[in-house]
Amino acid sequence: MEEGKSWESDDDQVSDVENDAAASFGVNGVDRYWSDMSERNMSYREPLIKRRMNTTSQIAIVGVNVSPIESLDYEIIENELFKQDWRSRKKIQIFQYISLKWAFALLIGVGTGLVGFFNNIAVENLAGYKLLLTTDLMSEQKYYKAFLAYAGCNVVLATAAAVLCAYIAPAAAGSGIPEVKAYLNGIDANSILAPRTLFVKIFGSIFGVSAGFVVGKEGPMVHTGACIASLLGQGGSKKYHLTWNWLRYFKNDRDRRDLITCGAAAGVAAAFRAPVGGVLFALEEAASWWRSALLWRTFFTTAVVAIVLRAFIEYCGTGKCGLFGQGGLIMFDVSSATASYTVPDILAVLFLGVIGGIFGSIYNYLVDKVLRTYSIINEKGAIFKVILVIAISLLTSCCAYGLPWLAHCIPCPEHLKVSCPTVDGSGNFKRFHCPPGHYNDLASLFLNTNDDCIRNLFSTSTEKEFHISSLFIFLVAIYFLGIITYGIAIPSGLFIPVILAGSSYGRLVGRLFAPFSKLDMGLFSLLGAASFLGGTMRMTVSLCVILLELTNDILLLPLVMLVLLISKSVADTFNKGVYDQILKLKGLPYLESHAEPYMRNLVARDVVSGPLITFSGIETVGAILHALRTTGHNGFPVIDEPPLTDVPELCGVVLRSHLLVFLKEKYFSGVKVLSGKEILQRFDASDFAKAGSGKGLTLEDLDIKEEELEMFVDLHPITNTSPFTVVETMSLAKAAILFRQLGLRHMCVVPKAQGRPPIVGILTRHDFMPEHVLGLYPRLNPHK
Amino acid sequence: MEEGKSWESDDDQVSDVENDAAASFGVNGVDRYWSDMSERNMSYREPLIKRRMNTTSQIAIVGVNVSPIESLDYEIIENELFKQDWRSRKKIQIFQYISLKWAFALLIGVGTGLVGFFNNIAVENLAGYKLLLTTDLMSEQKYYKAFLAYAGCNVVLATAAAVLCAYIAPAAAGSGIPEVKAYLNGIDANSILAPRTLFVKIFGSIFGVSAGFVVGKEGPMVHTGACIASLLGQGGSKKYHLTWNWLRYFKNDRDRRDLITCGAAAGVAAAFRAPVGGVLFALEEAASWWRSALLWRTFFTTAVVAIVLRAFIEYCGTGKCGLFGQGGLIMFDVSSATASYTVPDILAVLFLGVIGGIFGSIYNYLVDKVLRTYSIINEKGAIFKVILVIAISLLTSCCAYGLPWLAHCIPCPEHLKVSCPTVDGSGNFKRFHCPPGHYNDLASLFLNTNDDCIRNLFSTSTEKEFHISSLFIFLVAIYFLGIITYGIAIPSGLFIPVILAGSSYGRLVGRLFAPFSKLDMGLFSLLGAASFLGGTMRMTVSLCVILLELTNDILLLPLVMLVLLISKSVADTFNKGVYDQILKLKGLPYLESHAEPYMRNLVARDVVSGPLITFSGIETVGAILHALRTTGHNGFPVIDEPPLTDVPELCGVVLRSHLLVFLKEKYFSGVKVLSGKEILQRFDASDFAKAGSGKGLTLEDLDIKEEELEMFVDLHPITNTSPFTVVETMSLAKAAILFRQLGLRHMCVVPKAQGRPPIVGILTRHDFMPEHVLGLYPRLNPHK
Repeated sequence: MEEGKSWESDDDQVSDVENDAAASFGVNGVDRYWSDMSERNMSYREPLIKRRMNTTSQIAIVGVNVSPIESLDYEIIENELFKQDWRSRKKIQIFQYISLKWAFALLIGVGTGLVGFFNNIAVENLAGYKLLLTTDLMSEQKYYKAFLAYAGCNVVLATAAAVLCAYIAPAAAGSGIPEVKAYLNGIDANSILAPRTLFVKIFGSIFGVSAGFVVGKEGPMVHTGACIASLLGQGGSKKYHLTWNWLRYFKNDRDRRDLITCGAAAGVAAAFRAPVGGVLFALEEAASWWRSALLWRTFFTTAVVAIVLRAFIEYCGTGKCGLFGQGGLIMFDVSSATASYTVPDILAVLFLGVIGGIFGSIYNYLVDKVLRTYSIINEKGAIFKVILVIAISLLTSCCAYGLPWLAHCIPCPEHLKVSCPTVDGSGNFKRFHCPPGHYNDLASLFLNTNDDCIRNLFSTSTEKEFHISSLFIFLVAIYFLGIITYGIAIPSGLFIPVILAGSSYGRLVGRLFAPFSKLDMGLFSLLGAASFLGGTMRMTVSLCVILLELTNDILLLPLVMLVLLISKSVADTFNKGVYDQILKLKGLPYLESHAEPYMRNLVARDVVSGPLITFSGIETVGAILHALRTTGHNGFPVIDEPPLTDVPELCGVVLRSHLLVFLKEKYFSGVKVLSGKEILQRFDASDFAKAGSGKGLTLEDLDIKEEELEMFVDLHPITNTSPFTVVETMSLAKAAILFRQLGLRHMCVVPKAQGRPPIVGILTRHDFMPEHVLGLYPRLNPHK
Repeated sequence: MEEGKSWESDDDQVSDVENDAAASFGVNGVDRYWSDMSERNMSYREPLIKRRMNTTSQIAIVGVNVSPIESLDYEIIENELFKQDWRSRKKIQIFQYISLKWAFALLIGVGTGLVGFFNNIAVENLAGYKLLLTTDLMSEQKYYKAFLAYAGCNVVLATAAAVLCAYIAPAAAGSGIPEVKAYLNGIDANSILAPRTLFVKIFGSIFGVSAGFVVGKEGPMVHTGACIASLLGQGGSKKYHLTWNWLRYFKNDRDRRDLITCGAAAGVAAAFRAPVGGVLFALEEAASWWRSALLWRTFFTTAVVAIVLRAFIEYCGTGKCGLFGQGGLIMFDVSSATASYTVPDILAVLFLGVIGGIFGSIYNYLVDKVLRTYSIINEKGAIFKVILVIAISLLTSCCAYGLPWLAHCIPCPEHLKVSCPTVDGSGNFKRFHCPPGHYNDLASLFLNTNDDCIRNLFSTSTEKEFHISSLFIFLVAIYFLGIITYGIAIPSGLFIPVILAGSSYGRLVGRLFAPFSKLDMGLFSLLGAASFLGGTMRMTVSLCVILLELTNDILLLPLVMLVLLISKSVADTFNKGVYDQILKLKGLPYLESHAEPYMRNLVARDVVSGPLITFSGIETVGAILHALRTTGHNGFPVIDEPPLTDVPELCGVVLRSHLLVFLKEKYFSGVKVLSGKEILQRFDASDFAKAGSGKGLTLEDLDIKEEELEMFVDLHPITNTSPFTVVETMSLAKAAILFRQLGLRHMCVVPKAQGRPPIVGILTRHDFMPEHVLGLYPRLNPHK
């Protein structure tokens, strides 16, 4: 287990603070100085590490085997090598670069579209044959056999998913949206986007959804899209001797981030067939940084997904895809419902939104509790994970098969276009145990795929099709099943459980308001789903557009908007969105887009800390090696000192990864001279290109001999001469905004007074975390 | 005319560069130093000013009476007063603040919705009665009288619009989108959002559109929305003694920017009834900065607009609004067209996109040329503006009335649901000069309101309704009329002309491809409009969503996306988007979101320049007054010097506007002492709140006596102690990104070496303009 290392690996310039500095804060945070970093005592180091261990253990509690977390660097490292490369760029290279970006967007779209389609076909067929088998046995009145067949199939599928997840790629468990969100915020937890995660996510999701769990495939699709994008972005692996010169431009975090943003959008587009919704999802929920150019590329990707899906659906329309075939992926048509509404309707919708928001926030609260409980079980080992999955599978099967016995048989309505009771797998009117000419409404909801169930609930002009008691039983069962299912070791999306619960809730409210309101039950169902989604996910625009694209009726827009706004506002007063909650639970150091209020009372140097390790412009190999060995820092300030310059001056920041490459090549000199020109001739920017996650050089790859330790290295060519800086008295709030807005990994703090050493310290992501800041200054009011 | 001042007012720390610095560049931009600012000679000052004058005259050429341009400051000015205010904030105030933001969003939505609705009713009635009159006279075969009536009405309406525009608010001419875009980029050209501009924009647009010009109301609606938002944001005018304590939080550019973003989105939402499209328009085209929280608020505003419009349309559905009544604002229903397509269809669409892109870029090119020509006329005086408008109005009338005579009379098709020839004002089948039972297809296009014309062109299942020759004549006429109409002194949107030309172009292409393609002509028309829009506006996601919301059919999405992507890509190889072109023509210092390539070859100090004027922490009144008088700078660095501190150190930046308030209050002291505490007691952050555009104090408002000049002022309480800084060797590209991303007005450049004065210079928006940088370094290759 590498968990113990998880935080340490990113403590670029470990933060600490001296005794009196912490004590003196509060009186006047601005008027404090320290004259020399070396004077600072280290008495506070102990508790700091202890606190970190807590955070680390927090990571463990969600039961995900998190690999070392590393920060991503979205800054352009403008060192001499980069500039040399930049100046020698030819027009054709720039054209290639741009074309490649588009080509990759295309590939991501095609890939995600194919996976999305494959996923649907597989689920529809697996679940379809399972349900057909059950129905056949039921119609022969072999009820116990039917249950055994049903539950057996479920357990087998569930075990397959759990085994994949527990033994091959633990990172594939859960929704994946929080992890993608974290990556796009600049947190790289290695295996999150690894090929094996992709593999498990695809098949685990298929098995999990087919197993009848109350889980969706939407979160996993987002994760899948991101994994596909990441694979492409890391294309050209040195390890396998597959490098292409034209791929070198993508060897940086910026371009990979863009690709993964496209991937996340493509995932939503594939899951919901909602291209615009996908773009907005990436924009509103997933991405932390955004550019107008990216909007366009993301849109292109989702358009490709839509076209791929469309082509395949037309192909399947001729019945070549087994049980898959009717109506597209998920597409719920409520457009036949009239969308005119009056004051009582609006009141009903308001009521729906408020209660939906409350239920949504309770959902989040319970998911959090359940995750914490499960983590204790999951921590015990992979086999426990599998057992938990089997237990939940059995419970789900019991609910799905057992609860319909509580429902009454309802005579089939007359003048139906479809057969009643339903004869084939999917359909509104499951016969279950009922006599001919009757159907069991609860079985129609439970013994169906999730997509079909939602389609049933959303169906219009079906006022009386579901009995109130059935809806109530279904709502309660699905609400709690959804909560206890998230967190087990299978890929599990949260959208579908929430939509299921929300739409049955909506129908229930619709039945309550039936005397006053003329809105269709299908519409109520949609609005109920919107209210639950708003209450849990806390997205607005993207959810609204996704729902519109699902239902293909823009006239519903104002009502859906209203419900989303209300339910989000209500739920926001109680707790955070479910993805943010999971992020926090996983201990990922997510940077919020706003600064916390108390940060205005601090300045940058209040959180900056020592010991600051700097290099000289021309440094000995030994000193560098010592610094690399004894610290986990990923960036080191480089200071030019006399005799090289008249006075000490800040040259820039050099990265650990660049130093490792440099030392590996052993371009050392016996004397302290500038050797920039030769280095520029010998090296190329692509030599220092960022390797894929976890593939870079490590200290163990170096082979430095004893006699080489006293030799010199000219660091200038690999030093980023344009690091972003703040003056030490910059308020921490503004420094945080700068750090987050520009996607930095390191930020230098420079002195404000003449005559001081040219750098005061380095800030990293870690230094802006509320836990860190409030740990340093416990007397601060976190809300002021 | 204040144009001569327009650039000067923002040259905070006028840029200049010494002779040898410019000469030495290119060899090694990094290794150059200067030891002291005072040594720098001023020999290059002359040509710099000359170049600026050129820019100023560029402003004049578009004929808009631009008031002084000022930069906006989106940075939080964290001085002592702000912090005092921040710390004393009560929960209730924060709650008020947030509620107010939402309340304002609501108000903006309601306001813009009302205006949009009023605009539509007015146009439909004015234009409707005009057309009815003409048709009546035509049916009596009084052709000359009909023309006189038609042209007469047009000229009267056009003159009304032109007089309003030329004499009351010249800033209301044109689309308004470039100006809003510039504002949201941080450029405040005073009268752009003034109340009189709002007034003229509303009525000028109504008269202009009713006058039969080939102009739209969409751009003006965006401008109107922004004006409404600006009015609200500046609410609480000190001038009229209308200040409320709860409004003081909005006395800054940040909050106003947010409001105006909402306003721009509301404008699009009102113009097209496209709430999601409005949000995306604001995001993609209008706004330069964006936060997730803003997405939500903008969405709320557009939802309110949609609800308001819906309510009024239902009210008007009962026939209470004169000629207005059928079918909503503009809502073109092509949903009856089947949206399945095959390979030949895709090829047709590709062809359509490529040619559309070319036509779009030619459109932009011609608009640019025409604008430059018109500016010569418009510059001569208001009366010339009016004459130009009348001339164009007569030309438009001649085309609209004359060209239909070229068309053949077509026998009415059988089995129609509507009467043919049309009996009332709007309708597909204008009789014009034809015998009974026949209609003139060209008249149906020309002698209609623009909205009805588009509806006709978009109508489905009307393959043969328009003759190819008629479509061709219409396309050519509208294409060129659209080009020569933009730039005359009326509020004129560009969307509708482009959609008109594009949809007739689409129909033409559809007719060409009829043997191969089975796509409906209405669909071709829509795709043609998309291709022209993509080719001129260069938006993608927002246009796509707007078109979808107009046509209410999501299944068209892939085709529309494809066309937009192609036409935008094709057009981008030729020139810039039309709004960017107009921005440039107006000489507005727009900051692009990306850095120019050559900026990587420069560092921050290469463009920074003197004479740098700094203040001491406790400065004499005389020195401040002198600096304010002799420079146009808006921000001054404050340096604490011995004996106050041991060594000189950077305290922060103080703003001109704050200094003026401070001097006005005359809190002077005879001796050089810190008087921060008393000042904090006497002043309040709201005293320094930013006044509405052009309402702040000026030097003339001060009344400083001779004996006060030697007294001291403690600048600490009003100094922003957290200015954003870059080290002098930061590459200009990265500095530009920082400046733009954080919405700054001033950025300090600090030295990299120990022992130098704590500040090197200040950068402003102006210093990043390509014209400025390339002016300093003419030998730079702008593309590398």
